[in-house]
Amino acid sequence: MAGAEIEHLIALLARLPGLGPRSARRAALTLIKRRESLMQPLAAALADAAEKVRACGVCGNLDSTDPCAICADPRRTGASVCVVTDVGDLWALERSGAHRGRYHVLGGNLSALDGIGPDDLSFDALIGRVRGSHGEKVEEVIVATNATVEGQTTAHYVADLLEPEGVQITQLAHGVPVGGELDYLDDGTLMAALQSRQRVQ
Amino acid sequence: MAGAEIEHLIALLARLPGLGPRSARRAALTLIKRRESLMQPLAAALADAAEKVRACGVCGNLDSTDPCAICADPRRTGASVCVVTDVGDLWALERSGAHRGRYHVLGGNLSALDGIGPDDLSFDALIGRVRGSHGEKVEEVIVATNATVEGQTTAHYVADLLEPEGVQITQLAHGVPVGGELDYLDDGTLMAALQSRQRVQ
Ligand SMILES: [Zn+2]
Ligand SMILES: [Zn+2]
Repeated sequence: MAGAEIEHLIALLARLPGLGPRSARRAALTLIKRRESLMQPLAAALADAAEKVRACGVCGNLDSTDPCAICADPRRTGASVCVVTDVGDLWALERSGAHRGRYHVLGGNLSALDGIGPDDLSFDALIGRVRGSHGEKVEEVIVATNATVEGQTTAHYVADLLEPEGVQITQLAHGVPVGGELDYLDDGTLMAALQSRQRVQ
Repeated sequence: MAGAEIEHLIALLARLPGLGPRSARRAALTLIKRRESLMQPLAAALADAAEKVRACGVCGNLDSTDPCAICADPRRTGASVCVVTDVGDLWALERSGAHRGRYHVLGGNLSALDGIGPDDLSFDALIGRVRGSHGEKVEEVIVATNATVEGQTTAHYVADLLEPEGVQITQLAHGVPVGGELDYLDDGTLMAALQSRQRVQ
């Protein structure tokens, strides 16, 4: 009813996470009203990213270069590799600026429910890296999968897999989020935070 | 940190209503993962709509034809013109299927706060239509602006403007939304619903 081109655009926008049918219509209207400042640049940015962005052959990060900017950065240490489930997790860690080593993107978590087994994730490439396939001596693997059941199942699998390789395997600490209110935290987090308590400096 | 192309794409997506920085990142990841099924089609749909979709010269609706499909539809009556603030309102009314006449999109509401005066909205074109500029005799103008202060200010302005033209001027009824719970309705709506009460069939 809003013209075939607009209906088609709304249907595609509605498939983005975070946009339902109603907000997809609002987004389409905004785009049409800002044809030159938003709609045409977004069309170009999508076409550009679709053409250029690829998964890094070393770590699985998404970038327009392969190896990606993180793998190619000589200021970062290859001695520490942080294993994440997804590229979104890599982005979150990069925003924090906490990790100065490299990454390894598994591409998902082990999940019997979703039928995701070891062959579906990049465990072989991870073992290869630890064995020096990319010319960097890996000393520590930080397993930073989500603190969910599936994330922890995957973390244990990684730990078992790398145990014979002689690298140090660590994982993110549990605790109270910065700015978090104890009242809203689950018991497991509180217990972990208490057990890992640290001396006040 | 996620590559210039991806950062640029995320920045543009974050300007869509309903998508904040976080959901824009999620949307970008989804797009990259569904390159062929979603990203490339969306790029094409945006470029296509940017090229073809225009405001209808008669009513202000957005379509790839001018006059729009609604203005050109011989099965719809030109005797009844529904005046709306924005194209989104036109879409909402079309989804309901309640109106079988034509529309007139004002392009906004009168607003002293936002500096929107009569010259900024399509009142002249509306008078022209009522006077037969598009060859259709208009008998009724349904003013369907929002039930907000600015929408009602605009509705009164339209009513005053068209009063000398001898057309019937109506507005949408106030009342309880279908499925709405009385508990959650404001007093004004309840009063209007009570005053407009109708005999049970
Ligand atoms: Zn990489
Ligand atoms: Zn039209």
